[in-house]
Amino acid sequence: MTAKEKIASHIRENDRFFLAAHVNPDGDAIGSAVALSLAIEAMGKEAYVFGKDPVPDFYGFLPRVEIFNSSLPATAGMCLILLDCNAPERASVEGLPFGFSIVIDHHETESGFGDLRWVEPGSPAVGLMVFELIKELGVAVTKDMAMNLYTAIALDTGTFRYGNTTPVVFRAAAELVEAGAEPYLIAESYYETWSEPRFRLFSRALESLEVKNGVALIVVTGEMLEEAGASPADTENFSNFPRMIKEVKVSALFRQTDGESFKVSLRSKGELNVARIAEAFGGGGHRNAAGYTIKADIKTAKERLLKAFDGM
Amino acid sequence: MTAKEKIASHIRENDRFFLAAHVNPDGDAIGSAVALSLAIEAMGKEAYVFGKDPVPDFYGFLPRVEIFNSSLPATAGMCLILLDCNAPERASVEGLPFGFSIVIDHHETESGFGDLRWVEPGSPAVGLMVFELIKELGVAVTKDMAMNLYTAIALDTGTFRYGNTTPVVFRAAAELVEAGAEPYLIAESYYETWSEPRFRLFSRALESLEVKNGVALIVVTGEMLEEAGASPADTENFSNFPRMIKEVKVSALFRQTDGESFKVSLRSKGELNVARIAEAFGGGGHRNAAGYTIKADIKTAKERLLKAFDGM
Repeated sequence: MTAKEKIASHIRENDRFFLAAHVNPDGDAIGSAVALSLAIEAMGKEAYVFGKDPVPDFYGFLPRVEIFNSSLPATAGMCLILLDCNAPERASVEGLPFGFSIVIDHHETESGFGDLRWVEPGSPAVGLMVFELIKELGVAVTKDMAMNLYTAIALDTGTFRYGNTTPVVFRAAAELVEAGAEPYLIAESYYETWSEPRFRLFSRALESLEVKNGVALIVVTGEMLEEAGASPADTENFSNFPRMIKEVKVSALFRQTDGESFKVSLRSKGELNVARIAEAFGGGGHRNAAGYTIKADIKTAKERLLKAFDGM
Repeated sequence: MTAKEKIASHIRENDRFFLAAHVNPDGDAIGSAVALSLAIEAMGKEAYVFGKDPVPDFYGFLPRVEIFNSSLPATAGMCLILLDCNAPERASVEGLPFGFSIVIDHHETESGFGDLRWVEPGSPAVGLMVFELIKELGVAVTKDMAMNLYTAIALDTGTFRYGNTTPVVFRAAAELVEAGAEPYLIAESYYETWSEPRFRLFSRALESLEVKNGVALIVVTGEMLEEAGASPADTENFSNFPRMIKEVKVSALFRQTDGESFKVSLRSKGELNVARIAEAFGGGGHRNAAGYTIKADIKTAKERLLKAFDGM
């Protein structure tokens, strides 16, 4: 039996599931969790969807996204399903008692956690894996599931622009549109619903651009967030924009989390593996999208990152 | 026989073809013409690809795009194939003698031109129609054809974001990737080749943002152009970005052409018709993209535009 088949079998044989994706959830994490919870519910079982962080407003268009809950039930006896991450700390559920644990993930950085692990670093999106799992479970894909799965897949492939955009991705998208997903509605809801504060913060962030040896650096300080009236979640995707510049091979966003600490989001073009760089700083991610946290002033944080790329 | 089958049959039975797409060619026009010419050549026949206007630089990545020729051969006896338009004037080939004429288009029918007409206003892209035609001809889709057809389809669907993004589009994309199209390479070549001065100008322009009653206003002055070391052509597409803001219904870019004159580019969402507004100022365009020139200081120019929207 494949890992997928084992997971399907375990879901069929049990009744109470606790789904959690990584903190600061993105489209793949959110869409995967909602879709899988709907499939589990369609089987007449209980699916509790936990998210420590609130779902960013711009995912509010996703059907049933209100299913996310930030409070914790008594988890003993429940089956944990970790999505789009593979260690309980990434989902802020470490130390909780569970009867069983399942991991469905496509990240490169692995932990050994999980009674059943399905980790495919080569998979374009966890949404694609969940889509396959739902088919394996024999559950009919509803319009609500399709919208969530399509969004998960579309966003983790940069709406079909990244190197992970395979024929399998396109065929899944075709099936999901047939099942009710609406590409235009999703694209408009995601790309054209920024708040004005978010857009102003974006403009300020771009102003901070430095480009050194093909590495673009932009910064969002706590002060900038405050002045714009924006929230940390509003910085999602900012790190992608400097990639528009031809000579830029890697783009880094430094977001200040407190006085001497920064969350760094890396985006690379082509073969350049930023997961490796992020790991060296204690973080992780994918080849073309990764991140880490660093305790340093901004000057030191930038210098250390540039130095890490020097060796590549 | 369908129009597609009749066209395939005519191509099989003849030897000399003259392909022309519309002037100011876009990705669908260019990709369709190149791919079909390669298929005709693969059948051992002659395909002359005419384009009055040069192919824009950012399509230079397309394989075999240099096949476009702006000079005219003796066309008598050749079979004209009009692509992505349905009247010879749109391709600047009116009045030329041809032995036969074929039209392959997806625009609303506006002329009765053509001995054989295949016009499908509902088709997402002419590239999709040409892909079907090549399959009908029994020609194997090479990597070069696939790159061109994929680009045609991807760009006419806003890289799979517009309402015309159907399951058929996604399945065609899957097949074309299998035939050698590279989604990442195409997206990178098209979207990620800005110069650094262009990006810096973009950042400065966004800084100038004002939003009033759903109308976003941004400005590029001559001084800003000079300081960034950018050219007027670098402002192309800037007017699209403020549409990212949820409450923005129209976005306007004011580009200073001299001290007291501005070129105004308008972009709207949904049903809002900016062609009407542009016409009132002596300009023109399409429903969602239009422009005009105004002789006024920036304050007056903005006020007059906002006033024009007041009535809508």
